[in-house]
Amino acid sequence: MLAGTAAIKKKTFIEKRQVQPVCISSVHLHMTAATMQVSQKDFEKAQEQLKLLKNDPGNETKLKLYALFKQATEGPCNSPKPGMLDFVKKAKWDAWNSLGSLSQDNARQEYTKLVSSLISAESAGKKKDTSPKESSHGGYETLIVTTDNNITKIMFNRPDKKNAINHKMYREIINALQEAAKDDSTIAVLTGNGEYYTSGNDLNNFSNIQPSEMKKMAKEGAELLKEFVGSFIDFPKPLIAVVNGPAIGISVTLLGLCDVVYASDKATFHTPFSQLGQSPEGCSSYLFPKIMGSAKANEMLLFNKKLTAAEACALGLVNEVFPDSTFQKEVWARLKAYASLPKNSLAVSKQLLRNMEKEKLHAVNSQECEVLTERWLSDECLNALVTFFQRKSKL
Amino acid sequence: MLAGTAAIKKKTFIEKRQVQPVCISSVHLHMTAATMQVSQKDFEKAQEQLKLLKNDPGNETKLKLYALFKQATEGPCNSPKPGMLDFVKKAKWDAWNSLGSLSQDNARQEYTKLVSSLISAESAGKKKDTSPKESSHGGYETLIVTTDNNITKIMFNRPDKKNAINHKMYREIINALQEAAKDDSTIAVLTGNGEYYTSGNDLNNFSNIQPSEMKKMAKEGAELLKEFVGSFIDFPKPLIAVVNGPAIGISVTLLGLCDVVYASDKATFHTPFSQLGQSPEGCSSYLFPKIMGSAKANEMLLFNKKLTAAEACALGLVNEVFPDSTFQKEVWARLKAYASLPKNSLAVSKQLLRNMEKEKLHAVNSQECEVLTERWLSDECLNALVTFFQRKSKL
Amino acid sequence: MLAGTAAIKKKTFIEKRQVQPVCISSVHLHMTAATMQVSQKDFEKAQEQLKLLKNDPGNETKLKLYALFKQATEGPCNSPKPGMLDFVKKAKWDAWNSLGSLSQDNARQEYTKLVSSLISAESAGKKKDTSPKESSHGGYETLIVTTDNNITKIMFNRPDKKNAINHKMYREIINALQEAAKDDSTIAVLTGNGEYYTSGNDLNNFSNIQPSEMKKMAKEGAELLKEFVGSFIDFPKPLIAVVNGPAIGISVTLLGLCDVVYASDKATFHTPFSQLGQSPEGCSSYLFPKIMGSAKANEMLLFNKKLTAAEACALGLVNEVFPDSTFQKEVWARLKAYASLPKNSLAVSKQLLRNMEKEKLHAVNSQECEVLTERWLSDECLNALVTFFQRKSKL
Repeated sequence: MLAGTAAIKKKTFIEKRQVQPVCISSVHLHMTAATMQVSQKDFEKAQEQLKLLKNDPGNETKLKLYALFKQATEGPCNSPKPGMLDFVKKAKWDAWNSLGSLSQDNARQEYTKLVSSLISAESAGKKKDTSPKESSHGGYETLIVTTDNNITKIMFNRPDKKNAINHKMYREIINALQEAAKDDSTIAVLTGNGEYYTSGNDLNNFSNIQPSEMKKMAKEGAELLKEFVGSFIDFPKPLIAVVNGPAIGISVTLLGLCDVVYASDKATFHTPFSQLGQSPEGCSSYLFPKIMGSAKANEMLLFNKKLTAAEACALGLVNEVFPDSTFQKEVWARLKAYASLPKNSLAVSKQLLRNMEKEKLHAVNSQECEVLTERWLSDECLNALVTFFQRKSKL
Repeated sequence: MLAGTAAIKKKTFIEKRQVQPVCISSVHLHMTAATMQVSQKDFEKAQEQLKLLKNDPGNETKLKLYALFKQATEGPCNSPKPGMLDFVKKAKWDAWNSLGSLSQDNARQEYTKLVSSLISAESAGKKKDTSPKESSHGGYETLIVTTDNNITKIMFNRPDKKNAINHKMYREIINALQEAAKDDSTIAVLTGNGEYYTSGNDLNNFSNIQPSEMKKMAKEGAELLKEFVGSFIDFPKPLIAVVNGPAIGISVTLLGLCDVVYASDKATFHTPFSQLGQSPEGCSSYLFPKIMGSAKANEMLLFNKKLTAAEACALGLVNEVFPDSTFQKEVWARLKAYASLPKNSLAVSKQLLRNMEKEKLHAVNSQECEVLTERWLSDECLNALVTFFQRKSKL
Repeated sequence: MLAGTAAIKKKTFIEKRQVQPVCISSVHLHMTAATMQVSQKDFEKAQEQLKLLKNDPGNETKLKLYALFKQATEGPCNSPKPGMLDFVKKAKWDAWNSLGSLSQDNARQEYTKLVSSLISAESAGKKKDTSPKESSHGGYETLIVTTDNNITKIMFNRPDKKNAINHKMYREIINALQEAAKDDSTIAVLTGNGEYYTSGNDLNNFSNIQPSEMKKMAKEGAELLKEFVGSFIDFPKPLIAVVNGPAIGISVTLLGLCDVVYASDKATFHTPFSQLGQSPEGCSSYLFPKIMGSAKANEMLLFNKKLTAAEACALGLVNEVFPDSTFQKEVWARLKAYASLPKNSLAVSKQLLRNMEKEKLHAVNSQECEVLTERWLSDECLNALVTFFQRKSKL
């Protein structure tokens, strides 16, 4: 249920306030006391200072300021109560009226004090601003995690390995998502450092396995994968993927669990599961057909079709594609705007959409991990991996 | 299970009949009685009149006419019974054979009588046609509801308020849908009077609320919304949206519950829920991801992305976009064609598609209304509304 | 979970082997026995023969060959055990080391014997190759069913009837799918012989029905349809539709149950259910809204909209459209590549995707068949069929 106008822009507080100073009587004669003269000067100065305030102090404060100004300049509320339907006039009237018989002197003082507190709060904020606004989350080896402007950015950081996800990185992404879920940020962002978004599961995860340990390792790998995908399913805030370059395997399938996906025109999307004797994960077996229809999903998930960014956008896997040269600038401008929206509304709305299929998604995740465990122990998978490593090592 | 040919066009009855008159022996000699001569003249005149019939009288009547004509001109059925596989020949043979030993005289009279009744039925229909075909449904303040050509049109009619939906209008739309469900129409159509389709929920619905009544009002608002959306979920016939201009909020989300959506190129689609501190409704949290994939749905439902008509069409929210200059003409021609299709087939098919998720849709609707109730009582929503009204009233 | 590189191409075994012969010491002096000299000559000949091998003998055999070659030329494994992380080196070291103290003579003989067995296996295979590679499945009247290159092709073969599906053909398609499910093929393909893909249900199926038998026939028809659609739901391998020309009715709806759909630009897609007084089947009432969104699905399923191949592709019903002149060549090249992928991975992945909604699909199928039974007994359907046959027979 929504607004009766097409575009609602938030004007800055200053713009809106410029209407008011006009009604201030600029000449005051016959002051009764020195203290009061000081108070009057301070009052006028406060009005000037208020114009310099950069941030909107919020509706409640603005109503308070309005009321004190009226009380200070006109005395107790003397206008008729507005009709019930005039929401704003009534709010203003209520504020003024609530001051009762507060003297004009006291109103001036209150007003002055309030403006002063606003000014000093803002300048305190500014000092904070000159210290680095970006807070960095320590303790990560494979990621760079920072929070800035209400955005927690989780950046894959193994650029020399095409950001391939090794076991350490799986664990660290799980942790980073748990941290981001709890911190003050409004949205979280996933992106890659360097040329790649990520090349997906690091196949070296498979290379250190003794035949006798195969079953155990497959089981443990599936458990890690299930927890990893689960942490995407349960993430409670908007999660946005900023796909800076090629994405492979699980980093593609997880896009279905991200809420919005922006891509550079250098990005590609490839899920060569059957080629490696494996099977789809990341809830893609359920989400990809929902997103793009079963036929297009099968070409990717069964037959290893690699998509360009434009193709992925046409299929709805990606929201929008940007030229690589302006990608970061355009996307981050947009993300900052998103992060300034009402935080709880965003979280509640995301959860409304997600909760509808959370149970289903966890069931799908379990099922996919089970099938994949068997795949990892199959001859087809073993042969495909040997071929992959042979090619790499020029056997 | 379907036809063996690509295009099946209904020819008019006259075209098909033109084959037959050839086989009438045009000379009749040695009439035995005056009554019979008259009857023969009437019979010939009836054959001429039949050619002037504009509407197909239906297969049953055509078979009856065929049988009587054969009986009148050739006497009792004398041809061999056609094979089981020749459906049409057999139907004609059966009809003729069913007349048994009816005399040629009587057959001519029956034929003449039948044609005469068809002609007078049609001209009676024509007289009806000269009176206004459109029937108007009275008793609505915020809507114009009419039925014509098997189409019930429900037109939002607060053009000076951009067709914003106030409480009265919610109620009236519920009633109009209940009426349309029961009337003789084949399809129902929603459209807007004036420049807007509708600007969605009239925010003045919020303006007349005392703080002490907030909870009660939020609860009642959610109940009304739930009933309103429920009446779209349960609507039993094809429901088509003719989006003549900008659509906002709930009027956009409800498009997911309409069966077909045609839009003028002046239409836009905007759901600024989070901007107003609110959350999605109209089953959009479930249907939008189904229609356009989750990424594109989230940009609209979480991040207030406004779509052009062409964008909405590319995402499957809209079926087709027409230039505004020819919009009404093209769309209504199409709707008339739809309304002439077998009525029960359409209703049964729509219900087949809808019943599959009716339960789910009602559950989603409840869930959305519950979340929205909390939203309406939140500071984020209150602040957004105050800002909205301040802007409107230049506080 | 996937590969760390974007493109993984399988090189032929020969390409990879060419690295190895370099390390063979080409001069062998002071042979100790005639048998050994023969063995050495055979060994060298075997090395040459190995280069002529056309097919990759598989990783296990290659490791065995590697080990025997090393053992024959260098004696027992003498290099240090590679690190755990070097998967391939370790596999090779393991193979060599596993030969223990096998003598160089015996290693040469084993090597020679192994190569010899590979060569004769391949030439036996070649002889098979010179006999027609394509195996034809007999006993079909309305289909041509063949298996070739791991692909079972089921071709509708009533070209003079636009491949309309009569009762016999429904039965034969069910049987052909059951056979294809069990045979050695990796994928199955549906296509049509002649100009049409198929014109759908042969309406002559309706023409031989006595009014007294209507109910019985409708019931039996619905049972056949349910079994027919069910055999698509349960098909366990990738099933690909190669739509060579116009597709109508059930042949269109079943595309939703195929995994990938390629179309000639001569193909069209038409489901005139309501026009014939009928209702959607083939799980289209559930799958079409999933694939293309409800609005676009309704235009097809309720209002008989006929799509071009390009339109069907834009809606996700079709994967890709090819010019008719190169259609067969391009599509079959692609299908051969698909059929060479790991067979079990494909089957398991397809089943993973399908099992997620198998239960739902069977429920939808039942529901659709129930509704259709009623439709077949309705006046709307009867009238539409009579009109259809009248038109055909120029009543």
